[in-house]
Amino acid sequence: MASNQDLLSIFALGGVHEIGKNMYVLQYGDDMIVIDCGSKFPDESLLGIDLIVPDITYLLENASKVRGLVITHGHEDHIGGIPYIIKQLSMPIYATRLTLGLIEIKLKEHGLLSATSLHEIDAEATLTLGRIPLSFFRTNHSIPDCLGIVFETPQGTVVHTGDFKFDLTPANHQHADIHKMAAIGQKGVLALLSESTNAERPGFTPSERTVGDHILEAFTKATGKIFISTFASNVNRLQQVIDAAEKTNRKIALLGRSMVNVVDISLALGYLAMPPGMLVEANEVGRFKPHEIAVLCTGSQGEPMAALSRLASGTHRQVEVSSGDTVILAATPIPGNERNVARIVDNLFIRGVKVIYGSGSVTGMHVSGHASQEELKLMLTLMKPTYFIPIHGEYRMLYQHRLLAEAVGVAPERIFIVNNGEAVDFRNGEAQQGRRVPNGNTLVDGLGIGDVGNIVLRDRKVLSEDGILIFVLSLAKSDGKLVSGPDVISRGFVYVKESEALMDEVQRIALAAVTQLQDEEATQWGLYKQALKEAVGKFLFMKTQRRPMILPIIIQV
Amino acid sequence: MASNQDLLSIFALGGVHEIGKNMYVLQYGDDMIVIDCGSKFPDESLLGIDLIVPDITYLLENASKVRGLVITHGHEDHIGGIPYIIKQLSMPIYATRLTLGLIEIKLKEHGLLSATSLHEIDAEATLTLGRIPLSFFRTNHSIPDCLGIVFETPQGTVVHTGDFKFDLTPANHQHADIHKMAAIGQKGVLALLSESTNAERPGFTPSERTVGDHILEAFTKATGKIFISTFASNVNRLQQVIDAAEKTNRKIALLGRSMVNVVDISLALGYLAMPPGMLVEANEVGRFKPHEIAVLCTGSQGEPMAALSRLASGTHRQVEVSSGDTVILAATPIPGNERNVARIVDNLFIRGVKVIYGSGSVTGMHVSGHASQEELKLMLTLMKPTYFIPIHGEYRMLYQHRLLAEAVGVAPERIFIVNNGEAVDFRNGEAQQGRRVPNGNTLVDGLGIGDVGNIVLRDRKVLSEDGILIFVLSLAKSDGKLVSGPDVISRGFVYVKESEALMDEVQRIALAAVTQLQDEEATQWGLYKQALKEAVGKFLFMKTQRRPMILPIIIQV
Repeated sequence: MASNQDLLSIFALGGVHEIGKNMYVLQYGDDMIVIDCGSKFPDESLLGIDLIVPDITYLLENASKVRGLVITHGHEDHIGGIPYIIKQLSMPIYATRLTLGLIEIKLKEHGLLSATSLHEIDAEATLTLGRIPLSFFRTNHSIPDCLGIVFETPQGTVVHTGDFKFDLTPANHQHADIHKMAAIGQKGVLALLSESTNAERPGFTPSERTVGDHILEAFTKATGKIFISTFASNVNRLQQVIDAAEKTNRKIALLGRSMVNVVDISLALGYLAMPPGMLVEANEVGRFKPHEIAVLCTGSQGEPMAALSRLASGTHRQVEVSSGDTVILAATPIPGNERNVARIVDNLFIRGVKVIYGSGSVTGMHVSGHASQEELKLMLTLMKPTYFIPIHGEYRMLYQHRLLAEAVGVAPERIFIVNNGEAVDFRNGEAQQGRRVPNGNTLVDGLGIGDVGNIVLRDRKVLSEDGILIFVLSLAKSDGKLVSGPDVISRGFVYVKESEALMDEVQRIALAAVTQLQDEEATQWGLYKQALKEAVGKFLFMKTQRRPMILPIIIQV
Repeated sequence: MASNQDLLSIFALGGVHEIGKNMYVLQYGDDMIVIDCGSKFPDESLLGIDLIVPDITYLLENASKVRGLVITHGHEDHIGGIPYIIKQLSMPIYATRLTLGLIEIKLKEHGLLSATSLHEIDAEATLTLGRIPLSFFRTNHSIPDCLGIVFETPQGTVVHTGDFKFDLTPANHQHADIHKMAAIGQKGVLALLSESTNAERPGFTPSERTVGDHILEAFTKATGKIFISTFASNVNRLQQVIDAAEKTNRKIALLGRSMVNVVDISLALGYLAMPPGMLVEANEVGRFKPHEIAVLCTGSQGEPMAALSRLASGTHRQVEVSSGDTVILAATPIPGNERNVARIVDNLFIRGVKVIYGSGSVTGMHVSGHASQEELKLMLTLMKPTYFIPIHGEYRMLYQHRLLAEAVGVAPERIFIVNNGEAVDFRNGEAQQGRRVPNGNTLVDGLGIGDVGNIVLRDRKVLSEDGILIFVLSLAKSDGKLVSGPDVISRGFVYVKESEALMDEVQRIALAAVTQLQDEEATQWGLYKQALKEAVGKFLFMKTQRRPMILPIIIQV
């Protein structure tokens, strides 16, 4: 249809009503531009699942229209889905230098370096994808080289903020480009998509520089070795650690694969600076006096296989944390990770280590990378959008962001809280919400992408809670008479040796159910299976209040 | 041995190096007194487990010496284990009136009311168990009628604080008996066991009265119905809600079994006061105008089956929460519950409800029931113990409590951080730490107590992550030749219909493994089982990076 050539649509394939898995699409006529390609971790109900990435059915159906993938920054919730998505749909990727470096590592790991083309951009770049000119503006966040994106569509200007905060004293002296933002707002913005992660937090997020001050203070006080754990991707924080180490005459060692990767690439690309001879190998740490060493390590979220957890339990192969050392957790535990982090703190205290832990707002060792309410209002004020779509967040965050937008004067009827797959369509300057496009979660389990569905997950849930009882019986081919069984095998239900009486009863009940059908000369296997499930299931629930999976197997002999 | 008649021992069977499952034992000669009998919830690694209670093997071995069970207060982590323990070992139970009322409900539910004897005490009571005189002192906590216990042993006085805070403006005007505590300390305390839950928190825990002020303010502002969710056992908070409802002319309805239970018993025993006609049935709520109703409900921790969760999702049978209503979460989410609470807030916002949520320190709608650092130091100062054993807490809390004790002058070598089952023995005024007694976790799964062990849990873990593949084959009785199979059945691994190619390959590999053994004229079933596990396991890990349980079943025909 001709009129569709003028239709501007914006929708999310991931990132709203959730944290993570960010993927937004801007479509104008036959040109589709994808923004970000993130992953997220499954909650505990998705048993055995490693990762969730966006379902891109809609992009595959419109593959000929996809002009490219533009990435705002290099965090996992924005780039973690790339290898899984690129396997399904190759598209050129546009990102800043550091972001591209991190994407390259991922593609290399998956053997996909030649599967797509990578294009370096910076905040001053302009490019045109299909009929749409794009420009960018620099923002602050907890990783360097972050972009907001400006799409100059014939229907009007659309702005996507990416993740941001306003850090007025950024550790790397790279200020968010407020003047450029002001100019964009002054020219007129049709629609703003702005991130909502911290929309529930009053005030203004503290500067990363404040963390540097606390790190230096701790380094100055410490007498033994110092271990400091933080997100590897927070390159500016790594630099502040390096600076503190330099000032207190300590060498730096790195523990953890992602820490080594990020430091390597950041040094190579000029995002980190370190004096020559300062970096020592992990296995050289023992050669120095304790007060000459600072160790940057992964595992600040309590990840059981990461460096910090191994240090705390005394199972790291190369380095030992000892009484008199200081461990700094420069991160606030994300909900769900508290127990693992607490276990590490317990283990470190048992070793007589001084531990600086707890919420960053108390220790000063962590600040958020996301805009709090006053900063979100500042962004809305700078951009003066006609329409506003809060993105990046669970419903309550999007909702709080809506209230902030209303407070700074955006008309309530022009604010759209959307769900994934729910498009906002712009035609002649008027917007409408509600058209749906296919969307969903693609589950990654090991090497399988999307091969685990609801039935498998439901089975895993039953198996995880109460285990499985398998009944094996054989029936004669000739006359259907019971030849052997039913024999029962239990896994994950009860420990048979300690529950012999119960299992004997189960066997007796199963035999009774089968015998009754034999007496009735039943031949249909389905009847036997159903009778076993019912009789044993009922008995077990009455006796134990458990509902194990009951799986009858019948063999014809 | 005669000398053992003078030995005083103190040990925990639960409650140290953990939160919950509290059970302490004081033994003097042949007299054992048990203090508290709590339960705790399993962490996510204990798949399918409902509850954890102390392993009382040691008490069973010494059943003739157990003189009684003294309960400090009526929270689950102090009384939740009673039905499971009393089934194994009957002992007289001593507790205050409200605590006994809550214990009776539990015993009734388990049909155990006649399994033991219940003895009411109060803070002024004295009693003698075996050769040991006991007295008590009143404390403040987030449930009324809490006791600290004083044991007058010939070796010296031992004090167990139970859970406590110092609330100098308690909502129920029942002050902690500081004068009695001071007198006990003045007379001399050999050993203090004091709770450590909030030992990491600086300062002084705010008074419960501050919550009442915030509740009244919210009630005054609200225009629609008010729903307020809190722990049912926090009777003083319930009273403050009732008071606010009275002042703002609202009726009170109750939702949730534990809320109804606690209010019933508290009204009956005089711990709650409510004007006549104020309480309305849940199904009568619809008859009143919204501003005439306040609803007290369970589910403040996001429990999916509790009242608040049902209200938020619109599935409560009797009451509806509507746009314009106010929902108050008068509780701080316990780590691990944040996601469930957040889901409720999301759902309430979607319904257009005003929600007061988040940390109690921000909303003012919740204060802790546990002593912060200054209060712990106050208790230590009042009691002036010669020896100190921090209890109730994970290691880091016990450790911080040790630092507090050192700060107020307890000699470091007289502070014992103990593990469960690790006794502190007192002889002639000298203490020694280290003797071990049997202890552990008893896992409750449905009606089974202790019948789920490590093997079952390990199986559940494998099953939950990658499911199970069952191979069935039959071998001839006569010559061991393969008659049928191997057939493969999958549960919780992949969805077979969408992974036919993979399952075909699995079948082929299984057949090849069996055929090779047939060619070698193998007869031992163990060889077949091992070959199947190895061949299929290796293939699947290579192909999918998953490790499902592989269960070969061989039938002789």
